Amino acid sequence: MKFGINLFPTVGPGDKSGVRFFEEALALAERAEQLGYHHVKTVEHYFSAYGGYSPDPVTFLAAAAARTERVRLITGAVLPAFSHPVKLAGKLAMLDHLSHGRLDVGFGRGFLPEEFWAYQVPMDESRARFNEGVEACLRLWTEEEVTYEGNFHTFGPVTLLPRPFQSPHPRVLVATAITPESGEAAGAAGYGVMMVPSINKQEKLQEMLARYRDTRTTAGLTTTDEDVHFSYNCYLAEDRDKAHRLGQVYSERTNSLLASAVSSWQHNRSSDYAGYERIVARVNSSDFNKQLRDNKVLVGDPQEVADRVELIRSLYGETTISLQIVSGNMPFEESVRTLELFAEHILPRFS
Amino acid sequence: MKFGINLFPTVGPGDKSGVRFFEEALALAERAEQLGYHHVKTVEHYFSAYGGYSPDPVTFLAAAAARTERVRLITGAVLPAFSHPVKLAGKLAMLDHLSHGRLDVGFGRGFLPEEFWAYQVPMDESRARFNEGVEACLRLWTEEEVTYEGNFHTFGPVTLLPRPFQSPHPRVLVATAITPESGEAAGAAGYGVMMVPSINKQEKLQEMLARYRDTRTTAGLTTTDEDVHFSYNCYLAEDRDKAHRLGQVYSERTNSLLASAVSSWQHNRSSDYAGYERIVARVNSSDFNKQLRDNKVLVGDPQEVADRVELIRSLYGETTISLQIVSGNMPFEESVRTLELFAEHILPRFS
Repeated sequence: MKFGINLFPTVGPGDKSGVRFFEEALALAERAEQLGYHHVKTVEHYFSAYGGYSPDPVTFLAAAAARTERVRLITGAVLPAFSHPVKLAGKLAMLDHLSHGRLDVGFGRGFLPEEFWAYQVPMDESRARFNEGVEACLRLWTEEEVTYEGNFHTFGPVTLLPRPFQSPHPRVLVATAITPESGEAAGAAGYGVMMVPSINKQEKLQEMLARYRDTRTTAGLTTTDEDVHFSYNCYLAEDRDKAHRLGQVYSERTNSLLASAVSSWQHNRSSDYAGYERIVARVNSSDFNKQLRDNKVLVGDPQEVADRVELIRSLYGETTISLQIVSGNMPFEESVRTLELFAEHILPRFS
Repeated sequence: MKFGINLFPTVGPGDKSGVRFFEEALALAERAEQLGYHHVKTVEHYFSAYGGYSPDPVTFLAAAAARTERVRLITGAVLPAFSHPVKLAGKLAMLDHLSHGRLDVGFGRGFLPEEFWAYQVPMDESRARFNEGVEACLRLWTEEEVTYEGNFHTFGPVTLLPRPFQSPHPRVLVATAITPESGEAAGAAGYGVMMVPSINKQEKLQEMLARYRDTRTTAGLTTTDEDVHFSYNCYLAEDRDKAHRLGQVYSERTNSLLASAVSSWQHNRSSDYAGYERIVARVNSSDFNKQLRDNKVLVGDPQEVADRVELIRSLYGETTISLQIVSGNMPFEESVRTLELFAEHILPRFS
């Protein structure tokens, strides 16, 4: 198992200034490295307190790269639909150098209608744009004199600079929220997957993972813990009651921001997002105590969270887990203590 | 006068690896801060050794922000034609926070045909796209619930996150290569200018500056040294002959990369780039000894370079000068020595 942190911001200007959010996020990245964590990850979102402080994960990760030496830096995810592939592949290659090859690139399709509307990208083109964006980045990283003729971008012959540091290219991960076919496609292409345990039932997730691993086996690839990524809201305290009480506060705040961010799915349909209209009901019916019972959050005292991780390993096998330790705008000191308690009690047992 | 460094890369994979270029660039940024320089600047270019290691200046400057505390960070320039304004304004706002408000944003139109071809942006739309991109970023930084209806981008109502750190927004500079009207437009809007002494005659530059300053005066604005930026190839050595001999090598290497980068202007015309077809002849006829005589390069021993700066001040008034100390792929030690000699002998006299 590998463990890192996902610095998914869930704050707006009324909650925390940008300068303070980023200063704390950099301090947490440094502390995570000191404590032996595997990675620092962040998201690409816009406009709302649900991730909107991070419209460009590469910008933050470049600063984190300059403050750390060992920890891996992971985009979780960048959204090719909203960037030209020359720009996206180029800045990721820069980050690969700035970090001396510590970059893993997670790509996502995006799923929030307001973001697509702002970029004037039809959601029905989401899958095609995603596939094209990932393909174009891969070709720009691995080939010279690339001529690309896609439905959305045509260019070349061009040779991207800088060439990436890692050879043939940084590890590629693909965000697969609820569609099993996305996982299979990623497996067939040799990419890792970032799955979302909080919005999928245990049996569904197991099935998605089995299909992913089977596809890789068929393709002659072994699957390691670094090929399967999960993110979990995380809050630890020595006292179990306190952990549950405050963990509930932070988790419910995050959930309410997610509910607000997905609310336009009530009136939105897209052929590229089958079933997403149900996401609103699913998020709104989410209940902290049910999440706790269903092991959808890593909340509790150290022994309890260790048991939760053990259950995750027994259900899903060896994976990489990203701890969302700033979710719900918990105070910085609580993020630090969560990070430290997890490092002391859980990292040694599973790493 | 203010003095900083412009880390304009002039290397390709055959000259220097990306990892080494960026490690040296970060070390130079840290050293510049220690020595009392005002800023660190870098460019946006693609594909060729003429700047191509820097397809996204924000990515490098975010790393530089994390390694420094006082020095200003300047995009010189970002090119709005190649980014969606939501993405561009968003990542610049992140950098503004990551640097605690040390960001100045230089915007440019771009001028290399190959870059426009790769992005499939007609060069005849360059000025309109530039104006729209700058305007959209400014509105996203200063207004909430922005509805933008342009020729190239339409979006809103959206509120950009994070809001920028500096109020009302980071200082804005506009790159004005050879067109006096661009300088006047920048002055009327209250923006600073980045002018290019190396490709303009002294009288032309003086006229552009006079029109810029007049426009500001008419608008009720004073013009400070931070409103007018120049970049110069720079190489210093204690020994004058050595300075000229090696300064010539680095300067000619840079010039030959520029000549190659602009060569397609021979067969290219654009209504938005009147006169650019002559840029090829101008670059090709460039001669180091003439540049030295015309004071177009800051090359020499410390006394000579001090005299050159004195002449620049007497001709153009109080300005900000960015020293191109990695031009022509000079060895890292030579960049450091140039930085140190300039800091010792020239900074105290003009700062």
